[in-house]
Amino acid sequence: MTGFDAVTAPDADVAARARARQDRLTKPSGSLGRLEDLAVWVSSCQGVCPPRQFERARVVVFAGDHGVAAAGVSAYPAEVTAAMVANFDAGGAAINVLAEAAGATVRVVDIAVDAAEPLTPSIGAHKVRRGSGNIAVEDALTDEEVAAALDAGRRIADDEIDSGADILIAGDMGIGNTTPATTLIAALTDSEPVAVVGRGTGIDDAGWARKTAAIRDALFRTRALAGDPVALLRVCGGADLAAMAGFCAQAAVRRTPLLLDGVVVTAAALVAEKLAPGARQWWQAGHRSTEPAHAQALQQLDLEPIVDLRMRLGEGTGAAVALPVVRAAVATLSSMATFAEAGISQAPEKQ
Amino acid sequence: MTGFDAVTAPDADVAARARARQDRLTKPSGSLGRLEDLAVWVSSCQGVCPPRQFERARVVVFAGDHGVAAAGVSAYPAEVTAAMVANFDAGGAAINVLAEAAGATVRVVDIAVDAAEPLTPSIGAHKVRRGSGNIAVEDALTDEEVAAALDAGRRIADDEIDSGADILIAGDMGIGNTTPATTLIAALTDSEPVAVVGRGTGIDDAGWARKTAAIRDALFRTRALAGDPVALLRVCGGADLAAMAGFCAQAAVRRTPLLLDGVVVTAAALVAEKLAPGARQWWQAGHRSTEPAHAQALQQLDLEPIVDLRMRLGEGTGAAVALPVVRAAVATLSSMATFAEAGISQAPEKQ
Repeated sequence: MTGFDAVTAPDADVAARARARQDRLTKPSGSLGRLEDLAVWVSSCQGVCPPRQFERARVVVFAGDHGVAAAGVSAYPAEVTAAMVANFDAGGAAINVLAEAAGATVRVVDIAVDAAEPLTPSIGAHKVRRGSGNIAVEDALTDEEVAAALDAGRRIADDEIDSGADILIAGDMGIGNTTPATTLIAALTDSEPVAVVGRGTGIDDAGWARKTAAIRDALFRTRALAGDPVALLRVCGGADLAAMAGFCAQAAVRRTPLLLDGVVVTAAALVAEKLAPGARQWWQAGHRSTEPAHAQALQQLDLEPIVDLRMRLGEGTGAAVALPVVRAAVATLSSMATFAEAGISQAPEKQ
Repeated sequence: MTGFDAVTAPDADVAARARARQDRLTKPSGSLGRLEDLAVWVSSCQGVCPPRQFERARVVVFAGDHGVAAAGVSAYPAEVTAAMVANFDAGGAAINVLAEAAGATVRVVDIAVDAAEPLTPSIGAHKVRRGSGNIAVEDALTDEEVAAALDAGRRIADDEIDSGADILIAGDMGIGNTTPATTLIAALTDSEPVAVVGRGTGIDDAGWARKTAAIRDALFRTRALAGDPVALLRVCGGADLAAMAGFCAQAAVRRTPLLLDGVVVTAAALVAEKLAPGARQWWQAGHRSTEPAHAQALQQLDLEPIVDLRMRLGEGTGAAVALPVVRAAVATLSSMATFAEAGISQAPEKQ
């Protein structure tokens, strides 16, 4: 089944209390800028003011291959996906290092890697299929596979939240995955391919032209499907993207804050917002990548990136770099002195 | 004396080695964006590749009052400066909380607070005077006071580096201090006051008009002084700003990386670059504040802010929020696996 329970909103009363507390802290009102908004958001998600610092931040990397990689849309061969899953498992990838720096742990799941056997049974416990279809010429998935992948994402979110995760990050790994991601975003934002197609891991001009052609062909097959997220995942998505969408939706259903990463995760989030309206209230955009489609998707979700560092790696790395900013925001609201505590007049005389 | 030893450049050979190592790590070349540049910069400052994670990050907050506050240029009364020094000492201010979140410690120094006695002898060990002059109508300092304040900043940098600090952050506290800071930036970038005057801690329209008038009057007295940084500090600066300039310059002389904070610290840095040419190679811009003069100063220094979060508090808070990003950059270059280590073909075939 592809339906999600209704999303409820973060606690507005707690948000108002958090905002009022912000104005009593020893700083000019509003002077911490975005940090103040982030702290209020965390407070309202947790339903408590002051907010608690995160104790179990968890990154889940969704790995999957894409048949469209055979069309020459990536600078890397498809075998790199499986090799990178091993690298995640060994702790050597960027997301491992950045998560550790941010006080988070990493789990990698093989949703649709094109390998006969998953690296380990536990990494493959939610596997849907070997690679998704080549969206330039065929559907990525069957309806049953879409449902299975959405459910995998939902169960992974439930597992993590039941294990105590208090903030989630979704990450992606899959050679060729910016092609379906860009197609989904183009379909859901009614954009022309040439306006949103990026360089992914770093393709040359000829590769960019092939990628744009593949996206154009896939988009052609999505006509009139923009209102049907499940059909979009089937026609131009992929099992990993569907699982990420289920994960992002279920985090919101379970009232758990989540940081979005780059273009692939945000494409899945656009779909998740269709599947579970209001889910975006539980998300923040960790960063803005260099992919043009990413900015388009963030705009549609009305989310402002926390950092903008010209990153374009995926894996959850942009969100992991943003996590310390969110932690810093929480720390100010929970630990700064109020004017009263510091013995300073709370409402300074305006000159 | 106001002269500084010559600034030497970060190690270019180590930078080249760091750049080459970046390209061997398990990620597409360049895909970590600004993190790659920051990691190479730290490596070249430390003269070692891979770089070492910072073990003693240190924030020094320079406190001082400004006679121009009497002209109604701030939303707060001058007494708040001394009260906030006590708040820093008690650990209740934003910079205390944000430094702790970033793994840094805080020192506050009273350079020119308008109080008969410093809060403690150690906080007041480098005190130059009680408040600086009202720059709208008089010089901020005498030549002797400029020299004393520059020397105070130099000695504080030496103390911290000799005690093991491996990255420095300068912060500011002083009611009215964005007025001399903006004046210095306008003088050094040849800008019109109306183009660069901001709201500081949050003044209303009438206050903004008073601030702009004060800056215009002070600027009038700086004609033909743009090439003389010491004279600028005397006419339209302040003892705290001069000490920050000495601190930023000496960090570079001592080959120690430093993160700039907001408009006040960056004004001092503009002066420091004049006093010690090339010093800017040892600095990164922690953030961009909402003050228009800040963007102007960063442009002149050719520094790109790491984060842009609409902060406008000072104290070193913007730099403290950026420090975890620099730490994350260091972690990637020092701890990620190379393609060879992960058993992945290092130079993927271009399609």
